[in-house]
Amino acid sequence: MTDARETTARLLIRCADRPGIVAAVSNFLYNHGANINALDQYSTDPEGGVFFMRLEFQTPHLDLSRPVLERAFADAVAKRYDMAWRMSYAAEEKAVALLVSKYDHALLEVLWRWLRGELPARVTMVISNHADLREAVERFGVPFHYVPVTRETKPEAEARMLDLLDGQADLVVLARYMQILSEAFVGRYPNRIINIHHSFLPAFVGADPYRQAYERGVKLIGATAHYVTADLDEGPIIDQDVRHVSHRHSVQTLKELGQDIERTVLARAVRWHLEDRVIVHENKTVVFA
Amino acid sequence: MTDARETTARLLIRCADRPGIVAAVSNFLYNHGANINALDQYSTDPEGGVFFMRLEFQTPHLDLSRPVLERAFADAVAKRYDMAWRMSYAAEEKAVALLVSKYDHALLEVLWRWLRGELPARVTMVISNHADLREAVERFGVPFHYVPVTRETKPEAEARMLDLLDGQADLVVLARYMQILSEAFVGRYPNRIINIHHSFLPAFVGADPYRQAYERGVKLIGATAHYVTADLDEGPIIDQDVRHVSHRHSVQTLKELGQDIERTVLARAVRWHLEDRVIVHENKTVVFA
Amino acid sequence: MTDARETTARLLIRCADRPGIVAAVSNFLYNHGANINALDQYSTDPEGGVFFMRLEFQTPHLDLSRPVLERAFADAVAKRYDMAWRMSYAAEEKAVALLVSKYDHALLEVLWRWLRGELPARVTMVISNHADLREAVERFGVPFHYVPVTRETKPEAEARMLDLLDGQADLVVLARYMQILSEAFVGRYPNRIINIHHSFLPAFVGADPYRQAYERGVKLIGATAHYVTADLDEGPIIDQDVRHVSHRHSVQTLKELGQDIERTVLARAVRWHLEDRVIVHENKTVVFA
Amino acid sequence: MTDARETTARLLIRCADRPGIVAAVSNFLYNHGANINALDQYSTDPEGGVFFMRLEFQTPHLDLSRPVLERAFADAVAKRYDMAWRMSYAAEEKAVALLVSKYDHALLEVLWRWLRGELPARVTMVISNHADLREAVERFGVPFHYVPVTRETKPEAEARMLDLLDGQADLVVLARYMQILSEAFVGRYPNRIINIHHSFLPAFVGADPYRQAYERGVKLIGATAHYVTADLDEGPIIDQDVRHVSHRHSVQTLKELGQDIERTVLARAVRWHLEDRVIVHENKTVVFA
Repeated sequence: MTDARETTARLLIRCADRPGIVAAVSNFLYNHGANINALDQYSTDPEGGVFFMRLEFQTPHLDLSRPVLERAFADAVAKRYDMAWRMSYAAEEKAVALLVSKYDHALLEVLWRWLRGELPARVTMVISNHADLREAVERFGVPFHYVPVTRETKPEAEARMLDLLDGQADLVVLARYMQILSEAFVGRYPNRIINIHHSFLPAFVGADPYRQAYERGVKLIGATAHYVTADLDEGPIIDQDVRHVSHRHSVQTLKELGQDIERTVLARAVRWHLEDRVIVHENKTVVFA
Repeated sequence: MTDARETTARLLIRCADRPGIVAAVSNFLYNHGANINALDQYSTDPEGGVFFMRLEFQTPHLDLSRPVLERAFADAVAKRYDMAWRMSYAAEEKAVALLVSKYDHALLEVLWRWLRGELPARVTMVISNHADLREAVERFGVPFHYVPVTRETKPEAEARMLDLLDGQADLVVLARYMQILSEAFVGRYPNRIINIHHSFLPAFVGADPYRQAYERGVKLIGATAHYVTADLDEGPIIDQDVRHVSHRHSVQTLKELGQDIERTVLARAVRWHLEDRVIVHENKTVVFA
Repeated sequence: MTDARETTARLLIRCADRPGIVAAVSNFLYNHGANINALDQYSTDPEGGVFFMRLEFQTPHLDLSRPVLERAFADAVAKRYDMAWRMSYAAEEKAVALLVSKYDHALLEVLWRWLRGELPARVTMVISNHADLREAVERFGVPFHYVPVTRETKPEAEARMLDLLDGQADLVVLARYMQILSEAFVGRYPNRIINIHHSFLPAFVGADPYRQAYERGVKLIGATAHYVTADLDEGPIIDQDVRHVSHRHSVQTLKELGQDIERTVLARAVRWHLEDRVIVHENKTVVFA
Repeated sequence: MTDARETTARLLIRCADRPGIVAAVSNFLYNHGANINALDQYSTDPEGGVFFMRLEFQTPHLDLSRPVLERAFADAVAKRYDMAWRMSYAAEEKAVALLVSKYDHALLEVLWRWLRGELPARVTMVISNHADLREAVERFGVPFHYVPVTRETKPEAEARMLDLLDGQADLVVLARYMQILSEAFVGRYPNRIINIHHSFLPAFVGADPYRQAYERGVKLIGATAHYVTADLDEGPIIDQDVRHVSHRHSVQTLKELGQDIERTVLARAVRWHLEDRVIVHENKTVVFA
């Protein structure tokens, strides 16, 4: 496989399903010298459903600059099919900011994978409502901002965080950030805040899910990565996983095992987002993984 | 491994944890010529917790008849530790009755495994509120009873079912039986009715869980085998499993995939129950699998 | 989702990767009134690699008969890109013949799923080198042919089987058929014989893999569905799965657990084949599942 | 659960199976004031098989010092049953040395878990045949020794390593150490060297298993943690895991996915070893997990 990050572009599309969409899009790209190397599409129903498509294409021989290509696509294709669409370029890495409280496992997993080149992003900062993880974060060469939050200072704290994030975050990752973000905050980053919840949602919403799981006596524990919306724990699910447990597992052991699942699931969801593999539609996700 | 069904006995114990229990039980068995070939134990807390134990032992050289052995155990050991306990004998297979509505997958799975010798039981009957599966059941040489249920006739129907079951059911298996059993019915078979619920409980309690799962956009679907209690979908969980799904799965496909999980999970739970591997305690199960 | 089996067609393509393939194919279909409702594609390398594509499309508004459409496609598209390709129609169900020896689990799983409508096929016959399963098969309304095989009679037996299969088998499924088929036999059904091997290949090729697994002390057992080639156990793998085991599992228990995996894996592979989701290339499969 | 590391002892036993072993051991412990809080046992066959047992017990009320207890056990119990046995004490953490080459994922996973208190051990050193990971290791406060190896210098290099390890390693962990250790080296640490092999053994022994997996077209990749013996890749398997892959995965992607499995499997095997949960018998392991 040719390493082609420099010339890789992606196109995400959502529109009402109608005949001819694939032909129209692929023709457009072909005619302008783009070579499709991945194409995923999905329709909720060929008759009257919603159509989703993700294309990855190579642009070494483009006959147009990117902005001109985008304008041409808007005029020649998107308008005709009334598409919601977005082009992005692998070389323009997304800026990622991480929010964390005291647990370090999810944060470290993301930072390690990023350091190893598995996550195509610029990590711009870590913000925490505790000072504990400063040293661990700074070792990665990433700025750490300590923004304490109390019930009284929450508005100021969020304002400060929004300031820090401004222009520095295409994606905000809640790597076990234990404060609830206000609706206003969330509204600033629609479908651009990913949270890791420590249960297989919709089971065990709310606080202390491992204790809830222990008390219900379930034989599985899990984790869920989802976009954050104004409804706590109710946003579109990106990925989930579980593992088997038994009566022998204490709340503490469930927590340890669960942290392994949280690490994996969060890292996978973040990667999919960064690679433009996720389309949100009506509180659900289409993931072209 | 010697095939030793004729001489295999099992002892299940629950009591407050105290020093010396293992020694007392194993001494008792050794002194009476029983040879332990499996021992599982678990304590919620060595200090002040609850202790559970399952022993499987061979009785070819017993110096006492079984009833005398049981009485001796009661006097010499169980009383001293205030144990809830039960001895059972592999050669005395449990009587199993199956309840089913229209879906056949869970029922057939249990019957097939039984036919192949994987489930140590006598299947005494299948009761259904629909007549559809009569032929499929009778092929296995198992009596089929059609007991229709309407809102009005429910008390009579349950009375008829209890009549049929009387003396013929150590275990009742709800293999997708879509009627809710009354508290009185359930009370007759405490921890002896196993249901397969078509979701990974506690997610999606109630009706049509595959549709609920589809609408929430989860990335996992699952099934849960649990003992039936008066609280619908809230009884002690015996086993659960899940598999990954995606946006591509319609409600119908989820249902098909889910049925495979239901089959496996129910068959496993039934087998564990029949082999005396499950102890219920405070709405949870200890499973010595 | 509209039920559209009557009007569903599929197109499988393999060719050298070059720009414009997707556009050419999707244009062709659009221009003739076909509506693409699923498209999967994969390229081993955009530069100089091999390109694979599977399209599923609806043909209610075709402007040509199917044979004419196929000829037009050959002339207008396939020739230009030097494609290996195949069109098929969901309404023309494939004929499936099953070969089995004494173990019934894999066979019954396929027959059950077929009966329940999960496998789009006509099951034309079961051939066995033992008479044991006649009754079980005939219950499904499927003809059963007993063709015993000894070392001496193998050529005659295979000749008889080929006779029986002639015109009656688009796919041959070895559902634990314990005889090795001759190269000549296999050559008659290239990439159209699916076998279930009872190990996670390439581990434990050859006889008695559960015993081999037991003796090596592995912590996983598995099963592999693959196309049969002249090299025993070396054909293209379609699907595999495993589950965890421990020192507690005897050879017999491994066998029982393994049979569950065999059932699932074989049924999945057969379904994918029947839905034209598998393309073989250089002893590997591309599976558009 | 009381935190009881200070008073937790473990007893591992292997002997010919005979009646009375459990009674003898549990009596002995009870009579000396030890309270059993976990007991696992397994017999290959109650008649003439091999018996394995692991006990975890609390010693706050011991009537003897540990050495005297051990001697008493030897005299009173072990001799009678001709046991291979070992007592160990949770408070006496095992010394662990890690060997690594250039890949850091397995090493870092073990170090992180250790730092978080999940691995009860003293990590005494990391030895590498490359200098690359010095800084990463020293950040954990762990000494790093660079011991280059060439074909010519291998004996000296191993001698140097044995010197470094002398008295500093109850367990040696090969966290992707790419040199083959000599039989003499291995003989110094029988069943005390754990390697992580990057395939689901016995598939893909030898070099570059991800490439082998890619070329065979398997639908699963995996990793295996095993004790190192003189036979490369043939030692007793402690743990294995796999995940599903498809034709879309390049050798590079398989490698990335596989590294996640390697991390999990190695960490689990090391933990089990440190908690005295693994007994080796005839090139297989009994794992009381």
